[in-house]
Amino acid sequence: MNSFVYDIPVKVYFGENQLGHLGEELARFGRRVLLTYGGGSIKRIGLYDAVMAELRRGGFEVSELGGIAPNPRIDSVRQGAALCKEKHIDVLLAVGGGSTIDATKWMAAGALVDHDPWEFFSRWAPVEKALPVVTVLTLSATGSEMDSGGVISNPETHDKIGRMAAPLLPKVSFLDPTNTYSVSPYQTACGAADMLSHIFEVYFDMAPGLYMLDTFMEGLVRTIIRYAPVAMREPENYEARANLMWASSWAINGFINGGRAQAWSCHPMEHELSALYDITHGLGLAILTPRWLEYCLDETTAPRYAQFGTAVFGLDASEPPMAVARDAIKRLADFLFGTLGLKSTFTEVGIQAKDFPVMARKACGGDVLPGFKPLRQADIEKIFEMCL
Amino acid sequence: MNSFVYDIPVKVYFGENQLGHLGEELARFGRRVLLTYGGGSIKRIGLYDAVMAELRRGGFEVSELGGIAPNPRIDSVRQGAALCKEKHIDVLLAVGGGSTIDATKWMAAGALVDHDPWEFFSRWAPVEKALPVVTVLTLSATGSEMDSGGVISNPETHDKIGRMAAPLLPKVSFLDPTNTYSVSPYQTACGAADMLSHIFEVYFDMAPGLYMLDTFMEGLVRTIIRYAPVAMREPENYEARANLMWASSWAINGFINGGRAQAWSCHPMEHELSALYDITHGLGLAILTPRWLEYCLDETTAPRYAQFGTAVFGLDASEPPMAVARDAIKRLADFLFGTLGLKSTFTEVGIQAKDFPVMARKACGGDVLPGFKPLRQADIEKIFEMCL
Repeated sequence: MNSFVYDIPVKVYFGENQLGHLGEELARFGRRVLLTYGGGSIKRIGLYDAVMAELRRGGFEVSELGGIAPNPRIDSVRQGAALCKEKHIDVLLAVGGGSTIDATKWMAAGALVDHDPWEFFSRWAPVEKALPVVTVLTLSATGSEMDSGGVISNPETHDKIGRMAAPLLPKVSFLDPTNTYSVSPYQTACGAADMLSHIFEVYFDMAPGLYMLDTFMEGLVRTIIRYAPVAMREPENYEARANLMWASSWAINGFINGGRAQAWSCHPMEHELSALYDITHGLGLAILTPRWLEYCLDETTAPRYAQFGTAVFGLDASEPPMAVARDAIKRLADFLFGTLGLKSTFTEVGIQAKDFPVMARKACGGDVLPGFKPLRQADIEKIFEMCL
Repeated sequence: MNSFVYDIPVKVYFGENQLGHLGEELARFGRRVLLTYGGGSIKRIGLYDAVMAELRRGGFEVSELGGIAPNPRIDSVRQGAALCKEKHIDVLLAVGGGSTIDATKWMAAGALVDHDPWEFFSRWAPVEKALPVVTVLTLSATGSEMDSGGVISNPETHDKIGRMAAPLLPKVSFLDPTNTYSVSPYQTACGAADMLSHIFEVYFDMAPGLYMLDTFMEGLVRTIIRYAPVAMREPENYEARANLMWASSWAINGFINGGRAQAWSCHPMEHELSALYDITHGLGLAILTPRWLEYCLDETTAPRYAQFGTAVFGLDASEPPMAVARDAIKRLADFLFGTLGLKSTFTEVGIQAKDFPVMARKACGGDVLPGFKPLRQADIEKIFEMCL
């Protein structure tokens, strides 16, 4: 069991009717605010007006940058960083889902350097500081509202790269479940798949971790399995939206790691899919996850699957681990492709076998993904083939 | 479901060999350190020397205050606050268990006011600021290392009062499970009972909360039930000590509340026992808890017990809730008094019925404890009688 540092100083306002605190929180950082958002859904649900009313009430000087796309592009980051410099921005306010928040974090870092923000990814330029970021979340999925990471795509190079850096951690996040009422059943399902994957990337690991955190991860998975279908059927079910929202933050804010190496596998593989095909991140993860689990199952790893299956699906712990493991994978696949109704194959989403070698090579950086089971290019190609 | 604010900016170094970071963390706050500790066990286990070596290495100016007693007294707080003023202390370093940390927090607050520190309790004097507190934990129980509370006793008035205040939150805590290897089986058991009670005070509540947090609380309880007996049998079992240590922090740092009213019942009752009899806090809680649960059980509350019994003890969810509830209480009592071997009655620990009326009246502040079930003086007296 490894030692670790726990340090998550994000302040969260959770629940309805908390936006009245937005002004006092922003004012801690200054008066000049850059408001960022995506394709305009925040205008449809009235959130844009509510936020602007608070900003006006607080007398802030507001610049705006909308139109941040899903799988956010480096161009948005460049634009935002330039705007921060031009307008002498004090604090960035990201209103949206993970894409908006991810892009905003890198704008905040880009604002304080002289080089092109893409250099944070192309040459791993140091991230020593960033402007403060405050978020208002509208989609439960990526956990960006409570972590220090952000994933940025560069369409010119077909790269999609994630990176974490402590200065990017949001200072304050507003998590109001009612702001996710308008999320479609499909996006709700993709968000659930994304959260599940965040947990699996840590949970499925053979290094000894803290049992206490195992029980927490199993509880998160049960929470997502219980409430994602409810939120799809009843989009305005507060209990379901609230549980999904808080679960999404805790699936990836770092708490569950607790000293585990957490060498991610599915996310690096998926990033290559969505870099090339621009499919929804959570959908790509959903397709990959059961195949990855199947590929990694052997006599050594089976007990971990068995613990998962008994804790999450109530499977019989007295059965042989391998049998419980297979049943657990099947039940997970049934949940993703049956209950959530997500497409289950690459064929259905148009991902072609001809691209497997290059995607597989990039996913492992030309070497090895040192995860649950170390995966080399050939392994990843096999997992991709299982997804056809 | 209520809205809530989550804000726990304590930085935690968890695990072995982290003390090398002590100097850099203290140096963030200044050079003059007040080192506080209890009865000297930190000298026996070599921790005092290890801490002093780090302080010397960092060139700090160190003052010392040892001898802080269990159920810490206001006199220690007065002494520490005076020392902070006299020595112009920049940061307090508490090395010990909950008693040492609780007392140190109030020294840190007392250092910055002109009045007697007891006025924080007698007249609820405001706690606007405090000197920074860093902790090195040696006992898994109270959670003081990651919360903003502290309980102080005043033997003159027979008062034992807890109070929370944001400025008291430790800045940094060092949680090394090996520092709890020397904790006796009895103190390990009392610590486990204390942690369990922290969880029950939140879990047993009829207001709707987040299912996600229910699963977390149930996981914490399972963790404590799994590892407390291991740590008692094998004091140097790292896995057991690590799980208990991290569980103790998360049982009370505020995360599990998540909008629940959390009106505590057992702790206020127990504080009256240990104020008058100076028994170990966790032991008092262990005796009270099953009786309190029994007293609060009725048709309305039974489903909550049933959820607990199925999730924690694997009881059969298809049985009638009342039957599952009774079985759950019985299993909990078996754990506390059987597995942990704690004394199970007031009679065994010398608490006398003649004191029930005055203790019961003080526990409910002469009015009502508005918890799981509202408890008035007569209710509390009945619970005390069940403990005889």
